[in-house]
Amino acid sequence: MSQPSLDVIAIGNAIVDVMAPSSDEAIEQLGLVRGGMTLVDTDRARELYEAMGPAREISGGSAANTLAGLAALGASCAFIGQVADDQLGEVFAHDIRAGGIAFGTPARAGDPPTARCLIFVSPDGQRTMNTYLGASQFLPAAALDESTIASAAVLYLEGYLWDPEEPRAAMRKAISAAKGAGRKVAFTLSDAFVISRHGDDFRKLIAAGEIDILFANQDELAALTGEANFDAGVAALASQVPLLVVTRGAEGAVAVAGTERAEVPAEPIAKVVDTTGAGDLFAAGFLFGHVRGYPLAQSLKLGAVCAAEVISHYGARPEADLRELAAKLG
Amino acid sequence: MSQPSLDVIAIGNAIVDVMAPSSDEAIEQLGLVRGGMTLVDTDRARELYEAMGPAREISGGSAANTLAGLAALGASCAFIGQVADDQLGEVFAHDIRAGGIAFGTPARAGDPPTARCLIFVSPDGQRTMNTYLGASQFLPAAALDESTIASAAVLYLEGYLWDPEEPRAAMRKAISAAKGAGRKVAFTLSDAFVISRHGDDFRKLIAAGEIDILFANQDELAALTGEANFDAGVAALASQVPLLVVTRGAEGAVAVAGTERAEVPAEPIAKVVDTTGAGDLFAAGFLFGHVRGYPLAQSLKLGAVCAAEVISHYGARPEADLRELAAKLG
Repeated sequence: MSQPSLDVIAIGNAIVDVMAPSSDEAIEQLGLVRGGMTLVDTDRARELYEAMGPAREISGGSAANTLAGLAALGASCAFIGQVADDQLGEVFAHDIRAGGIAFGTPARAGDPPTARCLIFVSPDGQRTMNTYLGASQFLPAAALDESTIASAAVLYLEGYLWDPEEPRAAMRKAISAAKGAGRKVAFTLSDAFVISRHGDDFRKLIAAGEIDILFANQDELAALTGEANFDAGVAALASQVPLLVVTRGAEGAVAVAGTERAEVPAEPIAKVVDTTGAGDLFAAGFLFGHVRGYPLAQSLKLGAVCAAEVISHYGARPEADLRELAAKLG
Repeated sequence: MSQPSLDVIAIGNAIVDVMAPSSDEAIEQLGLVRGGMTLVDTDRARELYEAMGPAREISGGSAANTLAGLAALGASCAFIGQVADDQLGEVFAHDIRAGGIAFGTPARAGDPPTARCLIFVSPDGQRTMNTYLGASQFLPAAALDESTIASAAVLYLEGYLWDPEEPRAAMRKAISAAKGAGRKVAFTLSDAFVISRHGDDFRKLIAAGEIDILFANQDELAALTGEANFDAGVAALASQVPLLVVTRGAEGAVAVAGTERAEVPAEPIAKVVDTTGAGDLFAAGFLFGHVRGYPLAQSLKLGAVCAAEVISHYGARPEADLRELAAKLG
């Protein structure tokens, strides 16, 4: 097994976020579940966009956000995801490459357009996401270069992308390529509703030993394990994966690797502006520590610092100098 | 002369801003003039975009920004400007309509695409703008509905749009329609380089009594009058227009209407994040006061408050509740 030439390669939705402040009343009137992620079709996306206030567009996508954090910390990264041959596709490709991340998936011609996520941000910073998957759901397995996947220490996958059929097949192929090359597979469960649709697949992957590093939040942990009790859920899942990381929002996070266990509180922050990307950036900080061989507690701390940075402003990509923030941790 | 049913109708570039933080060294290496506005062609736009860091897209355009401020303050507004039939055109149209501004100019099919402005934001908040005019330069005079123009108390025009031929003809036609209906014409000089190209046109318009309200910053004042001395420049120009408003950045602003003169200092602000839109939002606050019949000094104060809000964050459109800020002024 050769030395990896990349730190992390990720497969994820290639999405541009369309974000606007909103009142909780407006979110309710639109029939949205506050704090949730809902898939929407063309008509519903148009309806929600028309109801949305003046917005800003910032590249997003869960795994892509995580890579943006990793690259900002100094990791070498590559992204695989499907954009369309349109202006939002150019925006996504520009932003990810400008962050120093290799991105070679060719844009897809014709309809549907590049994926977008309409995000209503509540006064307390909570985000309510409505994702129009567009081109993103047509990532073909053929877009994967197995030798590039084999060249990365970690393959990172987002559960959100398990919904559409073609990317699911592509991710299964990528897992084989990574495991065949002796690399680690990291997986984020993404959303409790994704687990309600694909929990059986996820449990099978875990049971088969395909997942080396599993990221979950407390809702996803409960959905996957069926355990309402947090500690019981952690214990159940930790016995099945070599490394488990569970975030608990304002209550911090826990990591378990075999008999080793570490916890970290959430970083204090003056004002939560927009929680979009909190989990993604937590994963970025943690994974950076992991690939650099930090102790578990220090990786958690870096995750908490990166999450705190991203919720202090609009958008799920880091704005502050993450290397500088990391350096302060020593 | 009937009562106006609209407060302000504006004709301007329909632009989406593409904004990213930048070092001053990078701005210099790219051959850009820090703080300036340069028109760029397709190739140069591509070159600059490739050199730009991860960005965010926020609707812009000078007069459109001013309307966004006016509408946020409670004025009734309409915008005329040319987008292309593409995703950035949809973004611009959505954002301006979501701000409560009537916008009916049909999107233009085919090339060129919607205008964008690549904005490099320095650590001190200074913005360096590179504008690709795209579809915006093809606003035809036929897009103007003279009865709508006649229905607004003020017609607001941006000097930036004097460069391309078709919008220039459209603006001349709009001036005739407004003056014919006994309405006021407000004009912002936009940029000293615009004056170097079109100063003769502007001086003729002023001499002919076509401009009722003139907005300038100190550089534009000097360029238009040829007076290096600020007070001499103000005196020279104030004798030619019924109402002159000159902004001086951190030194505040001056307004002169006949024998009446008022000054206002700049509003104190914790941190200048991005100066894009400072002049546009100053004009918004001032014009709102003007159409509501505020005293000169109070209109200036409202301009300063709106400018301070917009430079406290990224993007040239207001984010805070301007009505609330205005209410605090009494």
